[in-house]
Amino acid sequence: MNDTRLEIIPLGGLGEFGMNCMVLRYGADIIVVDAGLMFSEVGHFGVDSMTPDFTFLERHREQVRAIILTHSHEDHIGSLPFLLKKVKAPVYGTPYTLRVVEPRLEEHRLWPSAELRSVQAGDAIQVGAFSVEYIRVSHSTVDCCALAITTPIGTIVHTGDFKFDATPVCGDPIDVNRLRELGRRGVLALLSDSTNVERPGQMPSERVVIPALEDIFDRATGRIFVSCFASSIHRIQIIFDLARQFGRQVVAVGRAMERNIELAERTGFLDTAGALASLKDFKRFHPSEMVVLASGCQGEPMGAMWRIADRSHRQAWMEAGDTVALSARQIPGNEKAISKLINRCYRNEVSVIDSTQARIHVSGHGAQEDLRLMLEAVRPKYFIPIHGEYRQLYQHKLFACQTLGYAPDRVLLIESGDVVTLDSETAQIGDKIVVHRVYIDDTCSLELDETLLRDRRRLAYEGVIIAGVAVEESTGSLLGPPEITTRGYLGVDGDEDEIAELRDVVLAAAEAVPPSDRVNGGKERFQEHLRLALKRHILRLTGQKPTIVPLVIAV
Amino acid sequence: MNDTRLEIIPLGGLGEFGMNCMVLRYGADIIVVDAGLMFSEVGHFGVDSMTPDFTFLERHREQVRAIILTHSHEDHIGSLPFLLKKVKAPVYGTPYTLRVVEPRLEEHRLWPSAELRSVQAGDAIQVGAFSVEYIRVSHSTVDCCALAITTPIGTIVHTGDFKFDATPVCGDPIDVNRLRELGRRGVLALLSDSTNVERPGQMPSERVVIPALEDIFDRATGRIFVSCFASSIHRIQIIFDLARQFGRQVVAVGRAMERNIELAERTGFLDTAGALASLKDFKRFHPSEMVVLASGCQGEPMGAMWRIADRSHRQAWMEAGDTVALSARQIPGNEKAISKLINRCYRNEVSVIDSTQARIHVSGHGAQEDLRLMLEAVRPKYFIPIHGEYRQLYQHKLFACQTLGYAPDRVLLIESGDVVTLDSETAQIGDKIVVHRVYIDDTCSLELDETLLRDRRRLAYEGVIIAGVAVEESTGSLLGPPEITTRGYLGVDGDEDEIAELRDVVLAAAEAVPPSDRVNGGKERFQEHLRLALKRHILRLTGQKPTIVPLVIAV
Repeated sequence: MNDTRLEIIPLGGLGEFGMNCMVLRYGADIIVVDAGLMFSEVGHFGVDSMTPDFTFLERHREQVRAIILTHSHEDHIGSLPFLLKKVKAPVYGTPYTLRVVEPRLEEHRLWPSAELRSVQAGDAIQVGAFSVEYIRVSHSTVDCCALAITTPIGTIVHTGDFKFDATPVCGDPIDVNRLRELGRRGVLALLSDSTNVERPGQMPSERVVIPALEDIFDRATGRIFVSCFASSIHRIQIIFDLARQFGRQVVAVGRAMERNIELAERTGFLDTAGALASLKDFKRFHPSEMVVLASGCQGEPMGAMWRIADRSHRQAWMEAGDTVALSARQIPGNEKAISKLINRCYRNEVSVIDSTQARIHVSGHGAQEDLRLMLEAVRPKYFIPIHGEYRQLYQHKLFACQTLGYAPDRVLLIESGDVVTLDSETAQIGDKIVVHRVYIDDTCSLELDETLLRDRRRLAYEGVIIAGVAVEESTGSLLGPPEITTRGYLGVDGDEDEIAELRDVVLAAAEAVPPSDRVNGGKERFQEHLRLALKRHILRLTGQKPTIVPLVIAV
Repeated sequence: MNDTRLEIIPLGGLGEFGMNCMVLRYGADIIVVDAGLMFSEVGHFGVDSMTPDFTFLERHREQVRAIILTHSHEDHIGSLPFLLKKVKAPVYGTPYTLRVVEPRLEEHRLWPSAELRSVQAGDAIQVGAFSVEYIRVSHSTVDCCALAITTPIGTIVHTGDFKFDATPVCGDPIDVNRLRELGRRGVLALLSDSTNVERPGQMPSERVVIPALEDIFDRATGRIFVSCFASSIHRIQIIFDLARQFGRQVVAVGRAMERNIELAERTGFLDTAGALASLKDFKRFHPSEMVVLASGCQGEPMGAMWRIADRSHRQAWMEAGDTVALSARQIPGNEKAISKLINRCYRNEVSVIDSTQARIHVSGHGAQEDLRLMLEAVRPKYFIPIHGEYRQLYQHKLFACQTLGYAPDRVLLIESGDVVTLDSETAQIGDKIVVHRVYIDDTCSLELDETLLRDRRRLAYEGVIIAGVAVEESTGSLLGPPEITTRGYLGVDGDEDEIAELRDVVLAAAEAVPPSDRVNGGKERFQEHLRLALKRHILRLTGQKPTIVPLVIAV
């Protein structure tokens, strides 16, 4: 271990969107920036989400001094419970962030035992060789920070998620002066959010959505349903402000929405005063007196918005003449679910307005002009694009080199698992550490391994054929004909003739093995022999490759 | 059967995108307009595509006089082989359409036996009580037609897919005069494409993409890769024209691309003269001398474009300095695959231009202004929006009523399975016929039923547990301990202790059944008893619901 060098190792979030996690090691001290998760792309197979592979941190668990959270979005905090089960370390975050984290940890029985340490924007903490300063940034949720991480060889700035919003709705604007001051003093490396690098111009302030939302309030005669991410506290504040302006009461529907409103109010970021009503009062309000803030803007089948549109929510409903505003972006992969939600809304003869029709959503991630401002404020020696698929990281590098004149060797294009080694003068991309994806089943909060998923994938595609054979344990002789049964197999499901044929194949294969090789030590090989015989037969017959399970019962 | 009434019954494509199929019945005569398929939304589970439910046509097969194709897109012709296996009827289509259909039928051994009858735009055919006139329309592929279907009670106009393009690249523009003439004579009902009803303005001509593509040719120094739908013949012609203009040769990669170029040239819609080179010559060309037309613009993992980007294509590749133009829209659901393709391209250090960055794609479906033009040309008594999810159909109705002043009772908002009954004066929406979705496994071109899919879905989510028990056939007594094995099951995969516990549960459940009830007539009930015991135990223990297969072998 070389104690004059700093290692930067992304465990997730570089080369993929989601599950952000960045490791910094100096000497024998490790800090971890964020521990996010990624919602499932695997779709079926019982996988709900993915976490980074924490093997590296487990292996060096005694070096981990702190887990530092930049903000409270799932892709930055969602895998914290899984990390804390493997590595014990204090968790630092801003007050709102920690309030969001607490119930998550509680679900995993990690709270109140976990050590959560509250840090205000502007504060600096010392952890091992690192001094970590929290710097206020603007984003779509509140109490977000960038980090200035000072080590003996220089300062690293990690932007977290950010945009330059001089007029956020809640809390303070991004602390540009502090970023510039750090730049003047010298920054060794900047790690900056690449999410919106493909969008030209500057990302507008959150306030840009007010006129279009105001227009919706102005025209609406019936109920107004606004669905946004429950973490979009600025957006929620705008809705409360408009509700007051137009004499409506806000009813929150959906657990996430109710919870986040409460947390944001408790930490001083949200002001609902006089405008928040209880869901129980839904039925008492005249449609023109209320606005419903509902979670489930991505058309989630269990989400509040879907259940309201589908008329399956018991306490809230919509009627002809109501208005639905989908005040969020469509997360790639959710287009069909959102379309389904819109179809369902129209069946209630309501008006639906989404962000393609009116400016009722704006991103919390900076566009090219924000990225330029960040690079020019911090003026780092080295630049590492973070948070993006290869496409965004590549373009962020191009942008820094072609537009801002960075030398290509000053911009490090790395992905999860790559190890960057820095001293005060040079930066090198070294060996890659192996990072798998870890699949999580939410029902039981357990990790699924690759083998299990591969088995499920095969079962899903072609079903399963089970061949049972009874043999006498003492002699190995076959007892009666094989039993064949199938589930989800196209070829023979329910076709007696074909099942009889498969039975013959298994019988012939079984008879070809000498009786003494069918039992005791030979049983596994015997089973494999039956499996292969059946597999070959089916492949030849139908071209299919179902899972084949031979089951030899020795009696 | 009332022979003075016309029934219009959509079997697919209304309330969903894809698998368009419309039935018209007058007296004892049925014609079918289009027989399309829909690419799988089911994802895994071995389903590649879906077809409409043709049960209604099977039941009335002796009444089916003709299958009329409007154009050659998959969502209009893809399920024709499946329909022809159930119903024998002549198939009418334009020359290019039929050329595309032929090899499809051949794959299903339905060609040359199927009766394909070629019709030119402008021609009319008589089938049973129907006179069907083909009217040229503009669209993204060539040789597309609307239909004027005249019955004893009036004329129905079915637009097929269309836009008003006065300057298509290949073939004649939409025949507005004929549509107006029909309108003047009186049209009972118009069935019109709703795909782009949410887009304001008029859809530009296909030629709108020329400047941006020309610009790409102008700047490119290396190879140019253009990926578009293989059916986009106008687009392909533009690429050939630009190739000639810039002194490049076109190399087609991908079976669909090669085949469609050949068919379009043979039917006189495409002119490749002097600009088409063989894929074999790829390696001989200097990068600046070639343009590659590749299929797979949706990032399909077996598509030509992916294989080139991934360096797994043997005859074509890309290098730093090349340019990739994705000249197509992103079909909803394909966003992730396309992003993956773009990531892969950037790893080769090429430039990638998609339709969000430059005007290199335009839709073949009319926007609001086209839809208005159609309604005002045809001036139907009744209007039925077709081709869209509920969202588009609903908005098309709103558009006709609010913008064009149609009375709401003149616009029929129906979905697949709804039966509209028309006489010369009135239109009614009657009972719905049951239309399921039919799932197709492409490997074997077989239909999968709902039960099979449900079984696969359950296997995929939680795996399978198999419990084998041997019993003596004559007495019903248990022979030895049960055998337990699992695949894809999270709880016990490979855990010997848990498997022993499950074995105990099965044994106890087996022993609780009187021996005589375990065999012969009782066997099925015995198996179900074992299944339920295991199911309850696992649900209590882990909250999971794997598929449980009991297998009783009587010896």
